[in-house]
Amino acid sequence: MDLLAANDEPILTRHQKYCTWTPRFTLNVNTFLVPEIPSNFVNAGGEAPGKTRFITRLSPRYNVYEAKEHNYTWKVNYQTWAPDCVQVNIISINEQYPGPTIRARQGDNITVKLENLMPTENVVVHWHGIRQNGTPWDDGTASMSQCAIYSGDTYVYNFTVDRVSWSLFHRGPYFYHGHYGLQRTAGLYGMLIVDAAGKEPFTYDGELSIILSDWWHKSTYEQAVGLSSNPLVWVGEPQSLLINGTGQFNCSATNKYCNATNTQCSPLVSPVQPGKTYRLRIASVASLAALNFVIQGHNMTVVEADGHYVEPVEVDNLDVYSGETYSVLITANQDPSQNYWAGVNVRGRDPKTPTGLAVLNYLPDLPTKLPTGPSPTSPQWNDYAYSKALAKKFVALKDHEELPPLQSDRQLILLNTHNKINGYTKWAINNISVVPPTTPYLAAMKYNITGAYDTTPLPDVYTPRDYNITIPPPNHNAVEGNDVYVFKLNSVVDVILQNANTLTPTINNSSEIHPWHMHGHDFWILGYGDGVFDPVNHPPKYNMANPPLRNTVALFPYGWTAIRFRADNPGVWPFHCHLEAHFFMGMGVMFAKGIDNVGELPTTGMGCGLTKNYIHMHHYLSTWLASFSKIMAINSMNNREKGIHVYGIAPPLGIPTARMTIKWALRGARKCLALDFGLNIHGDRVAGTRFQDGGPRASVWGRQGAGVGVGGVVVFI
Amino acid sequence: MDLLAANDEPILTRHQKYCTWTPRFTLNVNTFLVPEIPSNFVNAGGEAPGKTRFITRLSPRYNVYEAKEHNYTWKVNYQTWAPDCVQVNIISINEQYPGPTIRARQGDNITVKLENLMPTENVVVHWHGIRQNGTPWDDGTASMSQCAIYSGDTYVYNFTVDRVSWSLFHRGPYFYHGHYGLQRTAGLYGMLIVDAAGKEPFTYDGELSIILSDWWHKSTYEQAVGLSSNPLVWVGEPQSLLINGTGQFNCSATNKYCNATNTQCSPLVSPVQPGKTYRLRIASVASLAALNFVIQGHNMTVVEADGHYVEPVEVDNLDVYSGETYSVLITANQDPSQNYWAGVNVRGRDPKTPTGLAVLNYLPDLPTKLPTGPSPTSPQWNDYAYSKALAKKFVALKDHEELPPLQSDRQLILLNTHNKINGYTKWAINNISVVPPTTPYLAAMKYNITGAYDTTPLPDVYTPRDYNITIPPPNHNAVEGNDVYVFKLNSVVDVILQNANTLTPTINNSSEIHPWHMHGHDFWILGYGDGVFDPVNHPPKYNMANPPLRNTVALFPYGWTAIRFRADNPGVWPFHCHLEAHFFMGMGVMFAKGIDNVGELPTTGMGCGLTKNYIHMHHYLSTWLASFSKIMAINSMNNREKGIHVYGIAPPLGIPTARMTIKWALRGARKCLALDFGLNIHGDRVAGTRFQDGGPRASVWGRQGAGVGVGGVVVFI
Repeated sequence: MDLLAANDEPILTRHQKYCTWTPRFTLNVNTFLVPEIPSNFVNAGGEAPGKTRFITRLSPRYNVYEAKEHNYTWKVNYQTWAPDCVQVNIISINEQYPGPTIRARQGDNITVKLENLMPTENVVVHWHGIRQNGTPWDDGTASMSQCAIYSGDTYVYNFTVDRVSWSLFHRGPYFYHGHYGLQRTAGLYGMLIVDAAGKEPFTYDGELSIILSDWWHKSTYEQAVGLSSNPLVWVGEPQSLLINGTGQFNCSATNKYCNATNTQCSPLVSPVQPGKTYRLRIASVASLAALNFVIQGHNMTVVEADGHYVEPVEVDNLDVYSGETYSVLITANQDPSQNYWAGVNVRGRDPKTPTGLAVLNYLPDLPTKLPTGPSPTSPQWNDYAYSKALAKKFVALKDHEELPPLQSDRQLILLNTHNKINGYTKWAINNISVVPPTTPYLAAMKYNITGAYDTTPLPDVYTPRDYNITIPPPNHNAVEGNDVYVFKLNSVVDVILQNANTLTPTINNSSEIHPWHMHGHDFWILGYGDGVFDPVNHPPKYNMANPPLRNTVALFPYGWTAIRFRADNPGVWPFHCHLEAHFFMGMGVMFAKGIDNVGELPTTGMGCGLTKNYIHMHHYLSTWLASFSKIMAINSMNNREKGIHVYGIAPPLGIPTARMTIKWALRGARKCLALDFGLNIHGDRVAGTRFQDGGPRASVWGRQGAGVGVGGVVVFI
Repeated sequence: MDLLAANDEPILTRHQKYCTWTPRFTLNVNTFLVPEIPSNFVNAGGEAPGKTRFITRLSPRYNVYEAKEHNYTWKVNYQTWAPDCVQVNIISINEQYPGPTIRARQGDNITVKLENLMPTENVVVHWHGIRQNGTPWDDGTASMSQCAIYSGDTYVYNFTVDRVSWSLFHRGPYFYHGHYGLQRTAGLYGMLIVDAAGKEPFTYDGELSIILSDWWHKSTYEQAVGLSSNPLVWVGEPQSLLINGTGQFNCSATNKYCNATNTQCSPLVSPVQPGKTYRLRIASVASLAALNFVIQGHNMTVVEADGHYVEPVEVDNLDVYSGETYSVLITANQDPSQNYWAGVNVRGRDPKTPTGLAVLNYLPDLPTKLPTGPSPTSPQWNDYAYSKALAKKFVALKDHEELPPLQSDRQLILLNTHNKINGYTKWAINNISVVPPTTPYLAAMKYNITGAYDTTPLPDVYTPRDYNITIPPPNHNAVEGNDVYVFKLNSVVDVILQNANTLTPTINNSSEIHPWHMHGHDFWILGYGDGVFDPVNHPPKYNMANPPLRNTVALFPYGWTAIRFRADNPGVWPFHCHLEAHFFMGMGVMFAKGIDNVGELPTTGMGCGLTKNYIHMHHYLSTWLASFSKIMAINSMNNREKGIHVYGIAPPLGIPTARMTIKWALRGARKCLALDFGLNIHGDRVAGTRFQDGGPRASVWGRQGAGVGVGGVVVFI
């Protein structure tokens, strides 16, 4: 039964009506002396001050939603493919390129069992735009949220495509992609579409997904070696631009369109009914190029950006920076006896790459009928005024998006510079070029693993403050680092990205567009400006009326971009330039918050670096609990499937006093969870009760050397 | 002080004189109910029935040897290189290709701290020909001895280049190479020379190392994808043959010799003094080609093969199969006014690749003086009679090599076939194409990790017994598997390798040479034969008089090869075709023995597959022990450095009775080890004594839920 389709009440209201409890389940060990045992052994979430929050990890199990489970098994491997009719190696998923489209409804749960079949390489997949609230370990970032999935291993991603905290109406086109080395550039990506659970502020008759990318014939190994060489060996501009994984290389026709018979490079031909309106979901996974999408003879009305509604903007071409997604509406209102080109062009770099083409096929015309006229053009590549003006047009749709807090608690000003380290070319932020550590940040912080990364506090503001952004760096030497910006949970943070000149002397706008993408959060874009950001005079001009919520924002040449976000998602989240080579060369920062509120990490996401020695307690304790609690069906600590889950903790021997407190709370009218909890002292089970409501609390302590344990069973229904 | 140089007593005798103890240190937990805790928590070795054995792991710390420690730090990464003047990506060590030469003396200890700098790939290095007795975890085989070293991680190999058990005179040219995917083909290899500790049965004036390989311009990624494609995409014959990492591609001179100015592809020019005798150590790391080495105008006297002395054999050219090593003596007895070509050619495959060349530079001739005459030729590629006759000439040098037991305990007959599985081209042994599991065999067996690999017993003999080896497989369907042959420790095993026709119809000798290499052991080559092996009539004709000890042996087309070995090295050891593509396609078997005698595995070699949950006890117990035993300097369980080592075990809570017995024994006159051992019951330290000799024994048991532990400290001096 689809409650939501029959009922367009705001979701939050219905949540409150049917299931107004906030599950809270914490286990605190107050005097724990052995550092590798987590201080909060189980903590699925918490209540944010002053507002009702839902634990997204549990939300699909509310009956309210009747949320669906979407289960996928993906086999990831290299194989040959010919995206632009030139055969190369790509990374495929289930022998498909691009990877299969995931489609779910807001609130649904996605499970992707990823089997890494690559013979020597590890892999991760990042779910771009999904907040992963409650599941920061499934963000799919190697060295950050998890160890990359070992060659031959399987990892199960399990997350909710839902963000029902402060922004109620999230949904939209997202995508997924590799987030390790240059694996995204090798073709590891696909669409992830989240349908709205409620009524949308626009209508349409049909829909179409468009995933844009740039493409090289040189392998990503060669590209990576080149980027890591001194001097830098640059792969150059892409050979092709792809629409849904197909493009045209070296085509002889004047319009450069190859009507390939090879299905791997057959261009997208999309049928439309004359007079009808279509929603196009457009994403760019480009590695390098800023792209511009255009449809011959058709205007587009932008209605959504990065999963948030915007005031409608009519354009005849659309800049799409890497990491961005848009929904646009088009109406098939042109001469129905013709077909029409859709095309993608390079902007922001002197383009060497021909237009990537697809065809809008007006039915009942034959799909093979070629459009007339040249391939569609985009604005001049370096017409930045056009790009900036367009970017500023996107503002939040009135009454549909949350507005930012009026004040921030902290402000970072991050200078983006092009640098050298020991002769190697790098990008740096406030003079630090990020080199993610082998031990993932999330595990390192959660388990207090010392030596995993540099804990020196990072500078909030670049120095010298009078840095001249209009010339190549006077001192081009940066340093490598892997420090983290740590924020107070739920604090409000402003970040000003400050662009500068590259290492190249100032000719031809030697300052590049950098599309910055934040993991785990959306942010409000408060403003863009040219030149150097002025902390006194610019903030009063911020757009506080209707700033758009986004997860990706462009930093324009020689300019600045100001964003604000609420640091309300426990975890470690990269914020970085989405150009793959730039992040590979160090252009990013790490943001951490609320690590104490992060639940136990899956052991399957560990095994690299210093996590080797820190993944043991879960397994050990499960076994130990099982040995006395007589529970036959033991699931792992992080198994979020329905069934019986065992949690427990044992004080290490030799600790003078191990005091443990268990608290749990269930509120509300609905039967949402069954909880059976037991305490064990000296090997005897002394308490065990089934709770369906109410909040018991228990405390126990043990003497040195005695066998004391606390454990329990949670049954998800 | 070099005791050995001053004393040519047999090593074993001197061992017995100075330090005749056998260290034995076992800790047995008799009634252990929790399966992931090892049944023998520490067990560095044992005494073989009826003979004195030395624990090689400890041997460098005998004062007898004054063995040296050789410490290396290697940074492994991709980089561009031009081995034959065509720039490609290679895997380098410390930015060198081939990797740095390791040189040590018999009995020395090698420590290689390997830092994996590759951005997304894991890596291992196998020490080809080194037995790794006592350190089977450092054999460097991914999925077998260890988890491949995670991208970004560091692993420390630590092993002794010594094999003083039953074969006293091991030493010689070995090499090391990648043993994961096709990383060897990508250039990950180098020489490992072990000098004899005693007097050798020949003399020479100078020496030279020669490492032979074949080389492709297509990346190993492309090659691997091709091998894994259906239909198979074959990279074809190599573009070049390399001598010490340099070769000639597309050279215009009639002799095809490019006198390159690029140092990366400058051919080897080796100076010799007229009239002097030189020892050449020759190794082949070839991926595919059977090679033949020849020096213009010079005979070679073969004196050593795979580190064992052979009766001298004079040849004018030498077959060197992939995985083999030889020492040959040459005398610079030709016209000293000339320089001379050394060359390497392909045999066993219709050669498409030009001769790889180097120059023997007679001093004082200029090194740039080109030899006269064409590049040296080798016998016809398919003159297998020549190859077989040459192979049979290599027999053990009288009184210098151990002879085989007269009887074997078990016989395997392994049929090598070319097969298809679901249309994919494979190689199979007794119809099983090996696909190594993600969880390394050694950890899976040591810790009884269920589900890591298939435990179905493998067939000792192929079926049907009347299989026709002269035609393509009548039924070409094989199956994939990862089962293991398990042998009784110290049993004597015969293996007969049986060759057959490939999938190709019978033209042009469509049966290939397969050089089979065994890890962890040398074996005696008892015989080669044509056609089908006859278990009744052929064994009586085995060479029991002077069979050579080898670690690699050729299986000739349509023939069989019989070997015998003593399964005396605890561990899991692959035995496989050394052609990299063939093993990648399944041509190998796994041999296991004496797993109970294997010591605790380093946690640094785990973290993949199911080892994630099994690497915890060591860390946990070290911490636990440290918490009450007040020992400040804690080293890890497998840290074999001098210093204090902590060992311990705790019974899990909830086990009704945990009985533990500790035994240790030290014999002999010398102070070799200091041992401080303590028992801990209920958190109190109840025993602690320093022993330098003698064998105490203690037993303790604890009640359910009580804090009971046994632990101790071993000090290596």
